[in-house]
Amino acid sequence: MHALTDLIEALPAGVVVTDGDAVEKYRFDWSRDQAAGTPLAVVRAEDAGQVQTAVRWAAEHRVPLVPRGAGSGLSGGSTAVDGGLVLSLERMRAVEIDVDCRVAVVEPGALNAEVKAAAAEHGLWYPPDPSSYEICSIGGNVATNAGGLCCVKYGVTTDYVLGLDVVLADGTLVTLGGRRIKDVAGLSLLKLFVGSEGTLGVVTRAVLRLVPAQEARSTLVATFADVDAAARAVLSVGRRLRPSMMELMDRASINAVEDYRPMGLDRDAGALLVAQSDAPATARAVEVEAMRTACEGAGATAVFVTDDPEEGELFVAARRAAFPAIEARGALLLEDVGAPVPQLPALLAAIAAVAAEHRVEIPVVAHAGDGNTHPIIVYDPADPDSERRARAAFDDIMRAAIGLGGTITGEHGVGRAKKGALPDQLGPDVMALTRRVKDALDPLGILNPGAII
Amino acid sequence: MHALTDLIEALPAGVVVTDGDAVEKYRFDWSRDQAAGTPLAVVRAEDAGQVQTAVRWAAEHRVPLVPRGAGSGLSGGSTAVDGGLVLSLERMRAVEIDVDCRVAVVEPGALNAEVKAAAAEHGLWYPPDPSSYEICSIGGNVATNAGGLCCVKYGVTTDYVLGLDVVLADGTLVTLGGRRIKDVAGLSLLKLFVGSEGTLGVVTRAVLRLVPAQEARSTLVATFADVDAAARAVLSVGRRLRPSMMELMDRASINAVEDYRPMGLDRDAGALLVAQSDAPATARAVEVEAMRTACEGAGATAVFVTDDPEEGELFVAARRAAFPAIEARGALLLEDVGAPVPQLPALLAAIAAVAAEHRVEIPVVAHAGDGNTHPIIVYDPADPDSERRARAAFDDIMRAAIGLGGTITGEHGVGRAKKGALPDQLGPDVMALTRRVKDALDPLGILNPGAII
Repeated sequence: MHALTDLIEALPAGVVVTDGDAVEKYRFDWSRDQAAGTPLAVVRAEDAGQVQTAVRWAAEHRVPLVPRGAGSGLSGGSTAVDGGLVLSLERMRAVEIDVDCRVAVVEPGALNAEVKAAAAEHGLWYPPDPSSYEICSIGGNVATNAGGLCCVKYGVTTDYVLGLDVVLADGTLVTLGGRRIKDVAGLSLLKLFVGSEGTLGVVTRAVLRLVPAQEARSTLVATFADVDAAARAVLSVGRRLRPSMMELMDRASINAVEDYRPMGLDRDAGALLVAQSDAPATARAVEVEAMRTACEGAGATAVFVTDDPEEGELFVAARRAAFPAIEARGALLLEDVGAPVPQLPALLAAIAAVAAEHRVEIPVVAHAGDGNTHPIIVYDPADPDSERRARAAFDDIMRAAIGLGGTITGEHGVGRAKKGALPDQLGPDVMALTRRVKDALDPLGILNPGAII
Repeated sequence: MHALTDLIEALPAGVVVTDGDAVEKYRFDWSRDQAAGTPLAVVRAEDAGQVQTAVRWAAEHRVPLVPRGAGSGLSGGSTAVDGGLVLSLERMRAVEIDVDCRVAVVEPGALNAEVKAAAAEHGLWYPPDPSSYEICSIGGNVATNAGGLCCVKYGVTTDYVLGLDVVLADGTLVTLGGRRIKDVAGLSLLKLFVGSEGTLGVVTRAVLRLVPAQEARSTLVATFADVDAAARAVLSVGRRLRPSMMELMDRASINAVEDYRPMGLDRDAGALLVAQSDAPATARAVEVEAMRTACEGAGATAVFVTDDPEEGELFVAARRAAFPAIEARGALLLEDVGAPVPQLPALLAAIAAVAAEHRVEIPVVAHAGDGNTHPIIVYDPADPDSERRARAAFDDIMRAAIGLGGTITGEHGVGRAKKGALPDQLGPDVMALTRRVKDALDPLGILNPGAII
């Protein structure tokens, strides 16, 4: 504890928190990993210099350090480690919009929604939109290379990261990239840090590319007798069109949302697609009609189209409500498996088979347009057998995704929840390569140990 | 030479080339580096297995290996090394279009234009379009993270790379990513290899994201009294609009093109912008009119707009002709410096000042919309003083770009031509990080030694 005193004294009052109650809330992210450790202290850094101080101290004393943004991660990427530091970036939340460069310069604790709002004041837009955008931080978005609903057209976080300031494992602060649209000077180290889940360095600033504000959207809602028909509609749309959103809900998730917050969704539908087009001017109507034709061709039982933004937003809100709605029914394991888009019907079928085999309820929502599904495994935490079956289903779903040429995680990250399955997807050679990069950048292994590998 | 016999015998007849004349043409890329070495042999691989054989042999015998695509690089990234192997990928050029996944699966020797053509047969489009797209290979595009003309709206090569097969420095073949739109399982190793210029591994296959065919385009051509006014128009457009092309030519490059191939360009114009909009339907006319207003507001002396694709293509062809046109005037050093877009006027002014100071002719063309300029330094190779002044100008232009928060290379890569300036841009800490990654992935230093670092 003498060493910790050094850290406390090196930082301004209040930055290092050691009080048990105060520390408690930094032990978990939204995956609520019951194996979470109890950290020695939480460092609530106010600037990059304090981050450097904390990392240098951790390196000197070989203390594990877990970086943490808003704590909304779903894979245990910021679960605390026994005897380690939690390095919280929640107080670093400055957002600057550089209109001429068309970038946002953002501290890691700023919420995704705050960046969107700041950009909107200048007629600009930061596209990546995780469902949790109102509560998740940009630092976490960068750490997981977060996706979202509009990514089917607009890409994921890495596509918008032009620059990063990163504190390396020895406390060195480096600046990678910057306010330049194009830059190929040297290795793509910038991109290596995106999605590294705090295992290679701590991001203290990001330069994010912005685009002009999104055009008005039209919303299409189509119901289907079953998820297979809906998935075939997704394929048909994807061959030629560029919807700005293509979300799927199955019957169980529709009903969970209706139970939680009645929105007038068709409880008898086997599946629902919520799609949007933001093509400009008259092209929007053309694109929406082409989507309608594709849905009808795949056997849609009803198709509804609206140009009214508020009405459209209601359906999107219904989709976003699926997670809290299902969470209200019990404990859950949130999956994030993906597959090549043509394998979407097979992936959905495999999920249903896993649910039947293990006798667990698995409502599914999906960013269907890019083949990324969120099966939500519901279980009774008071019933050990229920939990055991849920965990078996969780593993089997990942196995099924890998078998279809897919991924165990499309946008949430590996964290601690999925690291056991990562070698099954990547194989020994890519794991060895991963380990070599990790060792080169964090030779002491102090950065987020236990995450990813 | 006994060792080389092993390699020759391990590969099919004709794969290993040692004849002096045949080897000669593999010594240079388009940078024509007179310091190019003479390789021991050229391996013209036909498949990934042969690439593995060559890399394993190089590792065993500690022989430097320089991967090479079409040889159209401009930074000496594939300049041969004395006593090394050149590993040519030119014979590996299969292109498969997977319509349902909306990807192209491409071998590295396939030309960019061949991928575009194959995609177009299915109503799809591979956007990245270096000026050299008809003669440059996808392997080289991946190695340099190549840009192009439409990148101002559609991004650069890395934004389209979903998967890579890579032969590592020890001959191991790894598959990174795949036909999945979203995948965050593990570190972003995929992106690390993009832009690594053959220093970390040899790409043997790429999975490239495709998008629906580009919409019809309207072309705007605006003339200005000087480059400063043109650059201010670029800024004005960039604040709110998304042109699909925004190219600049200065007076010297306009006149070089007119001398080379008369196209009716205004020889008296101080600068020319060639911009396009591919917004769909009626939005296109709106965007082009907004661009016209921006150009006129910045003082354009004339603005011409056409919806005729062939007429528009003539102006784009004029822009693309600048490089061969200027090359016809003498030897040249092609620069590739970039800066944050608001610094474009300052960068262009700095280039003019360097030209005056060193008494060299430096026509400029630019992917102006993303701040990426190509000053083209013309010199007389028979006059040592002319060449000395040209090289001094080359260095000073990079220094000016760095001073403006820019980059020494926006899209051509560092190669051997610019490695001396790289530390000035990146600084010692990022160089050390680069070295650590290089050493981790290529501990023997056999992969393209002398490039980048």
